[in-house]
This record gives sequence, structure tokens and C-alpha cells, in this order.
Amino acid sequence: MTAPIKPLAEPATTFARRHIGPDPRDVASMLKTVGASSLSALMAETLPASIRQQAPLNLGRALSETEALAHMRDLASKNQVFTSLIGQGYSGTILPAVIQRNILENPAWYTAYTPYQPEISQGRLEALFNFQTMIADLTGLDVANASLLDEATAAAEAMALAERASQSKTKSFFVDADVHPQTLAVLRTRAEPLGWTLIVGDPLTELDSADVFGGLLQYPGSSGALRDLRPAIAALHAKGALAVVAADLLALTLLAAPSELGADIAIGSAQRFGVPMGYGGPHAAFMAVRDALKRSLPGRLVGLSVDSRGQPAYRLALQTREQHIRREKATSNICTAQVLLAIIASMYAVYHGPEGLTHIARTVHRRAAVLAAGLRKLGFRPRSDAFFDTVSVNAGAKLDEIVARALAEKINLRIGQGNLDGVLGIALDETTTIETVEAVWSAFGGKLNYGDVEKTADDALPAGMKREGTFLTHPVFHAYRSETELLRYMRKLSDRDLALDRAMIPLGSCTMKLNATTEMMPLTWAEFGSLHPFAPHEQAQGYHALFTRLEKWLCDITGYDAISLQPNSGAQGEYAGLLAIRGYHASRGESHRNVCLIPSSAHGTNPASAHMAGMEVVVVACDARGDVDVADLGAKAAQHGKNLAAVMITYPSTHGVFEEHIREICDIVHGHGGQVYLDGANLNAQVGLARPGEYGADVSHLNLHKTFCIPHGGGGPGMGPIGVKAHLKPFLPSHPQICHPENRGTSAAGPVSAAPYGSASILTISYIYMLMMGGEGLTRATEIAILNANYIAAKLESHFPVLYRNARGRVAHECIIDPRLLKNSTGVSVDDIAKRLIDYGFHAPTMSFPVPGTLMIEPTESESKAEIDRFCEAMIAIRREIAEIETGRWKVEASPLRHAPHTVHDIADDAWQRAYSRADGCFPAGTSRTDKYWCPVGRVDNVYGDRNLVCSCPPVSDYAEAAE
Amino acid sequence: MTAPIKPLAEPATTFARRHIGPDPRDVASMLKTVGASSLSALMAETLPASIRQQAPLNLGRALSETEALAHMRDLASKNQVFTSLIGQGYSGTILPAVIQRNILENPAWYTAYTPYQPEISQGRLEALFNFQTMIADLTGLDVANASLLDEATAAAEAMALAERASQSKTKSFFVDADVHPQTLAVLRTRAEPLGWTLIVGDPLTELDSADVFGGLLQYPGSSGALRDLRPAIAALHAKGALAVVAADLLALTLLAAPSELGADIAIGSAQRFGVPMGYGGPHAAFMAVRDALKRSLPGRLVGLSVDSRGQPAYRLALQTREQHIRREKATSNICTAQVLLAIIASMYAVYHGPEGLTHIARTVHRRAAVLAAGLRKLGFRPRSDAFFDTVSVNAGAKLDEIVARALAEKINLRIGQGNLDGVLGIALDETTTIETVEAVWSAFGGKLNYGDVEKTADDALPAGMKREGTFLTHPVFHAYRSETELLRYMRKLSDRDLALDRAMIPLGSCTMKLNATTEMMPLTWAEFGSLHPFAPHEQAQGYHALFTRLEKWLCDITGYDAISLQPNSGAQGEYAGLLAIRGYHASRGESHRNVCLIPSSAHGTNPASAHMAGMEVVVVACDARGDVDVADLGAKAAQHGKNLAAVMITYPSTHGVFEEHIREICDIVHGHGGQVYLDGANLNAQVGLARPGEYGADVSHLNLHKTFCIPHGGGGPGMGPIGVKAHLKPFLPSHPQICHPENRGTSAAGPVSAAPYGSASILTISYIYMLMMGGEGLTRATEIAILNANYIAAKLESHFPVLYRNARGRVAHECIIDPRLLKNSTGVSVDDIAKRLIDYGFHAPTMSFPVPGTLMIEPTESESKAEIDRFCEAMIAIRREIAEIETGRWKVEASPLRHAPHTVHDIADDAWQRAYSRADGCFPAGTSRTDKYWCPVGRVDNVYGDRNLVCSCPPVSDYAEAAE
Repeated sequence: MTAPIKPLAEPATTFARRHIGPDPRDVASMLKTVGASSLSALMAETLPASIRQQAPLNLGRALSETEALAHMRDLASKNQVFTSLIGQGYSGTILPAVIQRNILENPAWYTAYTPYQPEISQGRLEALFNFQTMIADLTGLDVANASLLDEATAAAEAMALAERASQSKTKSFFVDADVHPQTLAVLRTRAEPLGWTLIVGDPLTELDSADVFGGLLQYPGSSGALRDLRPAIAALHAKGALAVVAADLLALTLLAAPSELGADIAIGSAQRFGVPMGYGGPHAAFMAVRDALKRSLPGRLVGLSVDSRGQPAYRLALQTREQHIRREKATSNICTAQVLLAIIASMYAVYHGPEGLTHIARTVHRRAAVLAAGLRKLGFRPRSDAFFDTVSVNAGAKLDEIVARALAEKINLRIGQGNLDGVLGIALDETTTIETVEAVWSAFGGKLNYGDVEKTADDALPAGMKREGTFLTHPVFHAYRSETELLRYMRKLSDRDLALDRAMIPLGSCTMKLNATTEMMPLTWAEFGSLHPFAPHEQAQGYHALFTRLEKWLCDITGYDAISLQPNSGAQGEYAGLLAIRGYHASRGESHRNVCLIPSSAHGTNPASAHMAGMEVVVVACDARGDVDVADLGAKAAQHGKNLAAVMITYPSTHGVFEEHIREICDIVHGHGGQVYLDGANLNAQVGLARPGEYGADVSHLNLHKTFCIPHGGGGPGMGPIGVKAHLKPFLPSHPQICHPENRGTSAAGPVSAAPYGSASILTISYIYMLMMGGEGLTRATEIAILNANYIAAKLESHFPVLYRNARGRVAHECIIDPRLLKNSTGVSVDDIAKRLIDYGFHAPTMSFPVPGTLMIEPTESESKAEIDRFCEAMIAIRREIAEIETGRWKVEASPLRHAPHTVHDIADDAWQRAYSRADGCFPAGTSRTDKYWCPVGRVDNVYGDRNLVCSCPPVSDYAEAAE
Repeated sequence: MTAPIKPLAEPATTFARRHIGPDPRDVASMLKTVGASSLSALMAETLPASIRQQAPLNLGRALSETEALAHMRDLASKNQVFTSLIGQGYSGTILPAVIQRNILENPAWYTAYTPYQPEISQGRLEALFNFQTMIADLTGLDVANASLLDEATAAAEAMALAERASQSKTKSFFVDADVHPQTLAVLRTRAEPLGWTLIVGDPLTELDSADVFGGLLQYPGSSGALRDLRPAIAALHAKGALAVVAADLLALTLLAAPSELGADIAIGSAQRFGVPMGYGGPHAAFMAVRDALKRSLPGRLVGLSVDSRGQPAYRLALQTREQHIRREKATSNICTAQVLLAIIASMYAVYHGPEGLTHIARTVHRRAAVLAAGLRKLGFRPRSDAFFDTVSVNAGAKLDEIVARALAEKINLRIGQGNLDGVLGIALDETTTIETVEAVWSAFGGKLNYGDVEKTADDALPAGMKREGTFLTHPVFHAYRSETELLRYMRKLSDRDLALDRAMIPLGSCTMKLNATTEMMPLTWAEFGSLHPFAPHEQAQGYHALFTRLEKWLCDITGYDAISLQPNSGAQGEYAGLLAIRGYHASRGESHRNVCLIPSSAHGTNPASAHMAGMEVVVVACDARGDVDVADLGAKAAQHGKNLAAVMITYPSTHGVFEEHIREICDIVHGHGGQVYLDGANLNAQVGLARPGEYGADVSHLNLHKTFCIPHGGGGPGMGPIGVKAHLKPFLPSHPQICHPENRGTSAAGPVSAAPYGSASILTISYIYMLMMGGEGLTRATEIAILNANYIAAKLESHFPVLYRNARGRVAHECIIDPRLLKNSTGVSVDDIAKRLIDYGFHAPTMSFPVPGTLMIEPTESESKAEIDRFCEAMIAIRREIAEIETGRWKVEASPLRHAPHTVHDIADDAWQRAYSRADGCFPAGTSRTDKYWCPVGRVDNVYGDRNLVCSCPPVSDYAEAAE
């Protein structure tokens, strides 16, 4: 049972007023503009009456910011920070304070969006490029991506890549028995719907007989054992199979790189490079591949290209992502990275440099070697003579006694399960002190002095396994060793980017709302940050109280009966939701139900997820309004009736409209025995007004990084919990390490993420948001989000056609404007408009999604009328510039639209010969000169970058060459 | 007794390596450039052998950052955060999280320097302008300054101002008996050396008979009593005396403004506008005056002027400060403000706006009125029927029992002293909850329900005392009510400024070194931030352990025997040190000793402090080298022998040189019975190498904001503790509220600051710095600071003459370069060079101090070789530009030097007609275009601003006019 929230007497201020942009006077004026008599009238015109929820939200009184922080302190005090020597992919680490404060706690970094607009993202792109360089260097492989969600899903992505790239036609994949248990579990989840078989065994003895398309080997093993993997990799290659090595980044500073062992793919976690464990996440996983595989690399990849002046410029390379190309054939649905965490890990390496990282690794290894020597003295022989930081021993009958003594010293050991029954694992890390080593010995029943044992302890890295040669030789890993220099480097990079702390980011479907400071505070408290995800349940009571209440609130908001907090991205949520549907059908003996209806307007992730869940996608048409063609849906549902598994529908639609027929659609699908998956990306238009679980949906994922204030972090982290109706509850993701016996984990389904509660630490953000908004505040936020969008539609409709509205002329929480006719008449592309907005100091809206050639704008409730007006004025001024092309004043090639964005390089050019003045180019329509945001590069050449793919730091001299 | 610091096993990293810029390889290369064979050889060439300390520092092993934070957590846990209802000028308050994170914890704000260079300081100048507007509005007076140190010293400044401005020739000053006790005590300290008498009494009954030049009235009274002060003020005016009102800012939102009462001057504290109590500070005090007094206003004043394009631009107005004009006649030595805290208070008002502040005040008052009603029910009659937030009652014999019960509820009450014996004060604030009010009733022996009492409780603000009319009407107090908008406003302002997070600030004598993130962290923990300065000693054991150890370390570093942590600025430290000397002489029956020798090169603060301490200044000549003329000193000492009180000397000298004769100078003065005051501004050149207390000094102040890493905060806070030899220890500042019986406070001297330990909360910064550096690290820092300065001298000496070195050609930790000959030959002024440096992205060095027309450069140890090289290259490039004038390419008026700094307004001008290109103007010598710092205004016109003084926000329309 969780204690009730203790409210203080009265809130001094209302947080909702701080979260929501327009004040009551603004609201009145905006209602006038949109022609609605009141907010509730506007809601009635926007949402179908048939779906409106009757009862208000029941979240209790909103707490003030002060009260909320006091409550979080209280929760924090219920978590206990032990020294976790559990390892298993999660290590204690030291986040340098200067990085914590100036990246993790700095809105310039955490409120940034995914760097799709490269011109305003050069800072974080450079940081990600450093990350890729670091991963490529440490793994020795050619190309690394910009991070993945966690090590277990990275392993699954690698398995899928191997399946596609292997010459072998078999459907079996070999998995090292000494892989982390959660990795194995996620692989099982992912393999089963695709019909792949996992063969688990000892790669040194059990590989020869296996017929596989690839194999995953852990390096060092999860148990700590350090094995020479070369023979196993050679055996895989002999079969035409690909070798995937899951490696420990810190160990790689001392050990032969995966590439030297022959690996084709390396994956792993960058968590121990400064990223707090956070009871499971978020962290950045990595993947690196041989050059030949680079175009199959899942996730995001930063590449170097050139800008309009031929200067080097970073960008996301090969954006034609897996699920966009392959949709219903995809074996990956990943569309995000863990940017903020990858950046932290990269800065950790920039700060320490190769010599610092090596020093840390040597220190950790030395401690482990001494630990092992002491254990030997105490009669416990390590199971492996070669290891890096983790020692496993058979504790036998003494296990319980040892564990109890360790707990009394506030130390968690890893208790082996399955074939490791009776084995204790002890994983050391950067934070391990001599006292801790001595305390472990005490737990094992002996009193030894570290210094004494140290004298006779040998290192445990076999000569043939040691790293040779240098790494991280690029200057960036050598220039920022003083705090002052690092601080300035981080500031410089962040200044190159445009984030929410400077301007509205009006991205359709991305819900870039306020990430309030108070929401961000507890995250970095040790009581939330320093917990190992597999720490005993009783040490995490604060977390579990939070999970329980968060689940209850999310159920109230969505109308669902149960929530799984495990999926750590929206796409993961989709996948988990479809697995639940799959499990449900199977449990009823209807495993043949495998058809998933998906409207043609759906996000590419939908069909990819469906395919991964073993379903066949059948596309449903949309009508001229952009709505689902109900007749076509009915026909398809009937046609596939017996095999109908599900429909996947986004609501409000990807077109930003509340379709009238949503209940009907749900009924049709249910009538044929199918389930309704409702994509929750647009939940921000519904909270407090309508509950998917009430109007017919069976399952949804909820993007906590959209509707519930987790910041975008420049392109991750996110969280995608799912909500389900009661009948699907038994099919929510489970976890092999679930640490408590409640109803989570009774599931027939395996895990979809490495950690039981996904990126647990950032759940605090959404929790505090709801705590401070209360039901009334959340509902008000939804109403204002809808008002803001309709206000933009009203302000812009006489300048640009507004596509898609409902029958009463209302958009939902976003609107699509359509400049395609203007393109026909003037040549001005949606790109030109997007880049020109940068000159006005704005991030572009979403481009060409869901409709190519259009712009989708979502203001959210957090933007003030003043900022929205500023944006609309910029759009109108741009329309006037287009008119100048229409009237023939400029040709499009000579117009400021085509030359946008304008940079200091442009304005400084004494030979300026353009058809417009410098001021008109750089400060259009009287925008502020003083506070101008200058983007560091001109328009980036995408084609060049994809043709000449450069994804890690080349020698500095090459930058100059690239520019030529 | 304080517990020993518990070190963890081993530091993972060495903090000194992060604090110090150059790495060992850089050091080797720099030694080569300066022509020294080793660091220790360089030290031997720089410092006289006669002063070198023999024993190394004894600070113990340096802790790693992680260990230091763990140690601070331990100290924090020894402080207890009670609800303090003590009042007496300090109130609980809520610092909005968005302001905490983005100002107080943001290096862009806290590492900024004093805004002497207005072009790169427009952001904080605007924030200070808002502060001045807020104070002027709330007090109703015409002109407010940019803040003072604390309410008590503000009262003393007001007394001195009244003495000068009054028509009365008397030397007596009236003080309200209901003034805060610490204010009275500081007034006594300040009045005595100047021969002024304080008359303490009830202003409503005891003023008529007093012959005074002014009077200080507290509004509401310290006891809470709200009196109509109009008759008292009229009585003062009738005598030709000035009326000073010490007012509570929050109360002023409801009460008639001091100006309406007739006040000439209003002072007070802005602490309760969001600034944590911090066990005494730092906070911003304020002072506002009638228009006629504005040119006598002490401290800093921000004014509006115009820039080179006639656009409005902020700047420090009337910079000819008191001690610069009046030196040895000054009655103020103040040369700083509490900028960071004033900015926080101003942002608090920007965030809440007039309606929010009024709401807070009404809520607080209502709670107080209900509290009073309840106390009446319990038989305790409030001593005043009219009050704002503070209720005083006679507790009589029940006092101890009530206090004990309150403490059991974790509530501190104010226990009256002196004529308030038996009286308990209960001061409410923004954080007071209904539960707290009920708990107070419990302490008074009754169980009452707030709601019940509320029904019959009347407000306690007399009708005639209520505020009429509006305030804070300027748009800035209305536009930023959402967190998003405020966040963007703060970001916008900070982007306008250049601080240490972007570039070196090479200010001579200001020691702008790294303010490390770890040092800044504990400051904002509640256990340090939320303690009332007069909380019982046992609640502050963590603080006292810190003070004790800090004092011990500072004694070790300086060679002194005792430290007072009370002075909250360097000037306050000077003053306290001279008072100690004065007290010492008096104690020996030598009160006639009142002559203070001061070299002509001294900072203007020195003579001002001497005058304030009742001394007469005799100026000692300097020789051609810039050193003190020892012969002249000897002659003057002999001449004034019998009356010689002290010498004040800066060491190393203000010229940045270790004079050889410092021991001799000390001996001469001692030989004549005088004491040696050694100004510690340049202690950064000595830590670990020489101890003033060992080579002859008797007392020094230590600028913790220079040598010991307290950030400059954009112009405050600072801390100026003093160290003394044992014989002066009895004369260290005392305090009427000293809360523990140790040897602090046995003093014959009164307090110099409002709080017993000055700005206690920022002492954590210096403490952590020393904790992490250890003796070895601190010594290394000094050596590198000296190396860096000599390196700059070596790099620049072939381009600019370097003034002043010692006999072996070495400068200390700073160097002076002399462009005066160039001015003669080309007309290029030191101003031109300083402003041109902005185009290179640098803050200017110190201009024209100590030698007019020169530049003093202090790199500190924290700047890397790379950054120093970048600076030197900029200086050399500027020298080349001067050469272009010498060769006749440009006239000085047409040169980029005279047009500097260049702004976006310049570069955007299509009609550019200059003698040099845009690029040469804006990106000289190939400086980075991409990461260019653009200052928002051109060169600011100082004369215009002083002639047309505008010091608070005018109607917006006036900005445009000002530009014409």
C-alpha cells in the first residue's frame, strides 16, 4: 500500500497558470478570433459528442510546486541508495557535476527537438558525432549510430540486422548462455512473432553444431568471464552467419576491440559513461557495424555533409529509415535515439579523454583483481580466472548468509538465477571504494586488509586479450580537460541550437510543451538516480509508490484498466500493445488472427510494429477529408473477418482532426473479433475530454514525452507506456527480473525493454506534472491546446489553405497548412518555408507529414498568445515574400526564401549582390536584431551527405577537404 | 567539537586538474616562453625570499568532487531546517524553481562580472533596471539603486547620506526603538568612529525633544507594530532632518508607500522576494531616495543612456562613486552591490507581477490576522492591534514553556531581548501554512481550528495606512506570467551578456577564476538555504562545523590567529580590520593613534575605510617602479610616530608586483607603534607561498569572491572575512544575536554586518574549493596563476610596454600593459582597445586602474594556455590595427578601433561606407564567425546618460524618444 499524498494547507500559486501560455484575457480574445462563444462551446464543436467523457478526471487537488517537491522528497526518502554490485549491464558511475548542471539540467539541451532541421541543430549533432566517433573507436568498427534505447533492444536490432544481412537462410540465432538475462528475454520476445528460433549455449563449445544466421556473444560475459571470442566468431563466419558482440564500453579501453575479434556488429550500453542508473534508465545503447552493413544500421545516424557555402555541416544521414522504406516488411520500428544520454556519455569521454577512461578502467580492474584475490583467500574461487570488473563465485549453501551480511553493509550482490543458481556476482565500477571491497570480503565471512591483499593480487586480463594501439585520438577528446574549457565547449554547442528555451517549436504531433523546472528536479536526486534496476524491491518503495499512483492516474485519463510502464519509446509501446493483442488471441485459441488494418494515413511505425508482432498489414483507404474511409474499413474487416487481429488507428487522426466515426470504427472491428489499437500520439487533444478506453479502444501507448512533459532531450529519451482494457492485462510485458510479486509480471508475454519499468527515472517528470496540474488543470491544458491550434488556423487561413477540419470547421490540437499550390505557381517549396522560418527565429513545423508538401503545426497549451502571434506574423510575412515572387519581383532562386537560412557568413559578405537587402534577408519583417538567433550553417545539402557518408570524426584536415 | 572529514578511499579524479587550466605539457611550454627553468625557479624569481613560507599548507588530503559532495551532505544533515517565525528582517520565501535553475544555478548569470563594460552587460543591466523600478514603485520614491549589502548597512549608508544632506549641523541621529536589533547595532558601530550620537526612542513620543540630522523609522516595526509614521516624519522635517524609513517590501504592496508618509529615503531588504535566507545571506538590500538626493545615493545605480547609434542602452550611472570622489573624506566605502540576488528578487516580481505579489501579501496578512485572533482566544493579547505579518505578545512566565513546545513542533519563535524581555514574536511569511498557525496556537497552549478562528478574525491594516493606486505597471511586470515566457526572457537577457562560461575575463585584481559546479551545488540545498540567521545554534551545527574548519584553513593560509567571517564584502572587511586596530589602540590607552598611512597607488576604498574608522589619511609616495617609497614611508611614520595608527598596503601591490621591502615596511610601522593592514585583494598570488601573518601584517581582509571561488554574480555577492594576529582577536566584530558562546563575540567591537556570519550560505563555495584542492592543489594554483601572468607579459611585451616588474623582471599574478604612447601617436585610447576586444569575444581587462590609460590583466590559474593564447593573439592583432593608423592607412576616427564594438546593426547596414570591410570590423583576425558573440548595443555614451539620468523603467514610448 502506498501512503496518500499529503497536501500542504493551500497552494500559494497555481502551477497550471505557469504551464499554460494564454492567460484568461488572452483566452477571451482568442475565442473571439476563432468565433467560439466559450471554451466549452469550442470543445463541443471540436470533439464528437459521442466520445465526450462524462465524469471529470479524478486526480485530486493540484499541488503547488513547493508542495510537489516536498512530496517528491518524501517519496525519495522511501528509496534506499545501496551500493549495487549487481552489474548485469548497469554500473555505478560518476556524472561530472559540470555535465549534470549544464546538460542534463539545462533547458538549452533538454528541451531541444530531434535534429531533423540540421541548420538549427549543429550543436547536438556535433555532440552526437562525438558519440559515434567514441563508439566506433572503442569497438573498432567503421560506423556507429547515434544510440539506441537499451542494450537488450539493441541486441534485438542486431539480430534483425543479421537476419537480413546474413547469407544463411536459416531462421535460427545463436545466443551466448553468458548474455545478460534481460537481453535473452527481449530477444525471445522479438524472435517469436517473426518465427525465429534462439539457440542458447556456450559459444566456445556449442556453436559448431548450430545452424544459425548470426550469433550474439557477450564480452566480457554477464558472469564476468572474459573469453577469447575469436574461435566462436570464426565459427559463425564459417557458417555465413554474422557475429554480434555485446561489449562493455569501459572494458574496451583495456581489451581488444570487437573488430579485432572479428565482430560484424557491436552493441552495448553507454550507461556507465556518466549516465545515472535511474532504476533502469534512460541510458544510451550503442550499435556499430562494419562498413558493408552501414546502410542497414537501424536508428539515427549523424553524418557530415556540406552547407550552401560548401562548409562542413552535420545532419542526420540516411533518413530513409527502416520502417519508412519497408513499412509492413520491417523488422525494426525504431524511430528514436537516446540523444540526451548519448550526449552525456560523449561529454564524459570528452572530459576524461582516452587516458582518463583508461585510468578509470585500470582502477576498476585492479579493484576487481584484488577482490578476487581476497575471495580466494576466503575459500571462494572465482568461476573465471580472466575477468574485467565482475567476479562470480559459487556461494553454495552460504549464499543467503552472505547476501544478508552484504545487505547489512548496504551492498547489493547479484544473485544468480537458473543455471547460475547458487552463484553470486560482484560487479565493480568507477564508484567502488576500497572500503566496499573490504565490506564484500566481510560479507563473505573474512576480515582482510585491502592493502595486504593488493600486494599479491595479479591482474586478470590475459595478454592476448589486451587492447593495442590508440583510440579517441581526435582533438575533441583532448582539448577540454579543465572544467572551464568543457563548460565553454558545452555552452558553445548549445548556443548553436534553437530549443524551447528560446522559441516555440510548433511541431505537429510532437507536442513540444513546457518542461517545467520543478518537474525536472527530482530526476537528478540520488534517491532516484542511483538505484540499480534490479535492486531489491524493498529498496525502491518510493519508486513503486510512484508507479502505482501514476498507473492509476493514467487509467483514469485513458479509461483503461491497466498500464505497463515498461516500453521506453512510443514505438516500443506500439509493439508491446500489439503483442498483447497477439497474446490475447492466442489465449483464446485464435492464433490465426493475424491481419492488422492500418489506414493509409498512418505513421510508418504502425505497419512496422505490426509486422514485428507477426501480423499482416492490410491498408485501409482514407476519404477526401483525410478521414478513414469507413466503408472501406468495413469491407476489409469483413473480408478478413476470421483472421482479423486488430486495427491500428491514430486519434485524433494524424491529420489533426477528431473523426466523427471513431466509435463506429471500433464497433466494426470488434464485430469481427478484432481488437482496437489506438495510437496515443495525439492524446494531448483528449486528456480530460475523452477516454479511449471508454469509446472503444482496447489498447494504446501514451507518449509521456509528448502529452506528459518528458522533454524531448534533442531526440530522446521518451517513454511509451501502454494502457489496456482488463481482458488484455494478462498480456502486458513481463520481466525476468521483476523484483516484486504484484500483478505486473504474471504476463504471458516477455519483456520488450531491458528494464522492468523502462526509463523509470523520467517517470518522475510525468508524475510531478500530473501532481501539480490536477484533473482540472490537465483538462484546461487540453482545452487551451485545442484553442491554440484553432487560433492558428483562424489567423493563417486567409493566407494559406488549412487542410482537414471536422464537419463543424474545427481542427483538434494541430492544423495542417498547405502551400502546394504556391509551389506550383512560384516554385517555393515547403523546405524553403521551413528554412525561412529559421530567419524569423523559429523551428519549422513538421514538414511533409502526414501530407507531402504541407506543414503541420501544433502549438500546445504552453505557448502564449504573444508567441503564437509572433509565429503567425512570421508565416504571413513569408506569404508576402511568396507574393513578391508571384508578382515577379524576384525569381524563386534569387529570393530570400531559397537562400534561407541566412547566416553571419552571408551578412558579412561585402560582395553581397542579392536582390534583397542584408536586413531583409537576415531580419525579415522587422524581427529583432539584438536578440537574433544566428544559425551556424546555411542550408544543408542532404544528397551530398548521403553520397559521401562520414559518420565519425575524420582527421581535422579532412574537414577542410570536405568543404571543397 | 567538529567531526573530522571522512575521506573516501581514493579520489577517482583530481579536482585541481579540473580547476587549473594549463596541463603539465602546457606548463612546460609556457615556462620555456617566460624563460624559467621550472615552476619553483619562477616562484623564486617572483617572490622575495624573505617572505616565502617554510612549512607547506596543512589542509589535509584533497577530496574528489564526489567525496566533497558526500562530505557536504554529511554537514547538511547536521543542520536542521525548522520553520522559522523569527522575522526580524528575514522571512521564509519561495524561490521559483525556474529562477533557481536558470539564474542562481546558471553560470551565464553567476560567473558574470560587474557591468562596468556596459556593451556586454545589457542583460543583467536590464534585470537590475527592473529591480530599481520595482523598488522605486514600491517605496514611491524617485530613484533606487541597484542594491546594497544588507538592511543594516543600508541603514548606516542612509544615516551617512542624511548627515551630508541635512540642513541640521547636529551630529545626532534618531533611531526608532522598534528597529531590528542588528540594524541598531550596526548603526552604533558606524556612528561611533565618526563621532555621531544615536538617540534611540519611540518616534511618536520621543522625537520632539531630539536635535538630530535624521531619523530611522521601521515600517512596520521590528515587533510587527504598524504605526502611522506621518507625524514622526513631519517632526523630523520640522528640524531640517531627513526621514529614513526601513520598510518591508512585501508589506508595501498593501501599505501606503514611504513616499506617501513623507520619507526622504527608504531602505530595506529584498530577501523575501524569493531569495533564500541562507543563514544570513547573501541577499539584496535596497535604498531609494527623493530626486534631490539621487547624486548622493551610495552604491551602484543603473541608468539608461544611448549607444553610438543613438539607441537606448543601459549602463552604470554616476560611476564617480563616493570613495573615489571623497576618498579620505568619505562616509561610505561601498563599492559593490548584490547583483545576483537583486536580479533574483526582480525576477520574482516579474514572475508574480503586482497582482501576484498583492495576493501573496494578502494571504500572509490574513494568516497573521487569524493567528492574532486565535492568540487572543488563548488569552494572549497582541501588543499592537495593527500589524502586517508579525504578531508580538507578552508571554511572561510561560515563555520557556511556549518556546519549548514550539521547538518540539520544529518551529522557531522570536524571543525578545532587552526591553522586549518576555515578549515572543511570531512573523509569518509566504511559506506559512494553516498547519503552522495551528501549531503555534498549540505551542501557546490551545487547540484551535484555523477555519473556525478565521470566521471571526478581522484584518489588522488600518484604513489610513493602506496603499492607494497601482504599482509595477511597466509591461515587464506583466508579460512573463507563464514559465515558458519567463524562461525565454531570462535566456534572452543572459545571451546578451558575456560571462566566464563563454570567454576569459582577464580583469586585473578581480581574479575571475573557475567557479566549479560542484562548489555551487550545496548552496541551494534546503539545509543550507533555508536557515534563519538567528535560528538556535544547535540547529546550525553543520554550518558551525564548516565555519570552524574554514577559519582554521584560512588561518593556515594567511598566518593569522583568528578569522571573522562576518564582513560581507571586501570593503566591509577593510572597515572591520581598521576598527580592530582602532579598538586595539584604545584598549592600550592610545586612542590618540589615528593616522593611517596609505600609498598613493591604493584603491580608493582604502582611504574611505580609514576615514570611516575615524582615522586621518596620510598619503605615502610611490617610486618610479610603482613601489612604495620606503624612505617617504619612513619619514611619514616618524613624523606621525606618536599618532601612527596603521599603514594600509596592498600586497602584491596594486601594480601586480611583489615589492621587495614589504618586511621592512612592516617593521618601520611596527617600530612606531602602528599596525599593518594588508589588503588581501591579491591573495591569489600568495596562497601556499607566503603568509601575510608571518611576514609582518597584523590584519587583512580576504576576498573570498576572488581567491576562493565565490562567483562574482554579475557584481555581487562577495565575502570579505578578516584575519588577525592574536593581539587583535578581541577586537573582531561581535553581534547582538550571536547564538553560541564561543570566542566569537567576546569582542569590544560591534557588528559590521546584519548577520553574524555575513553571507553564510556562500561560504560553502570557498569551503568546498579548499576541500577539493587541498594544500598542494592550492599552492599549485598560485604558482600557475603567476606563471599565466608572466606568460602573458612575455607574449605581449614586444607589442606593448609591460609596466612594473620586480628586480628579476617578474610580475606577480597580473600585469599592466601600457598603450599610452600609442595614444599619443595615434589617438587610440585604452577605451578603444577595450571595446575592440569585445569584437574578438573578450571582456576587457581592468581599465585605467591603478594607472590611468593602462590595462591590467589577470588570467588566474583557471585559464588554459589555449585561451590565453587566443587573448594574446587578439591583443597583438589590435596592435597591428594600431600600426595601420600609425602608417596612415586609417585615421583613428575611421578605424575599427574607434567604431568598436561592432554590432549586428553595423554589419546589416547596406550603406556600409567604412574604410574596412564588414568582416574586418566584425570578425577581426579570423575570429570565429559561427560562434561570434554579438553585443547588443554599440559603444555606450556615458556623458549622455549622466546628464539625462533615467534609473527606472519609463513608459515604453520614452525609450523611442531617448533614442532620438
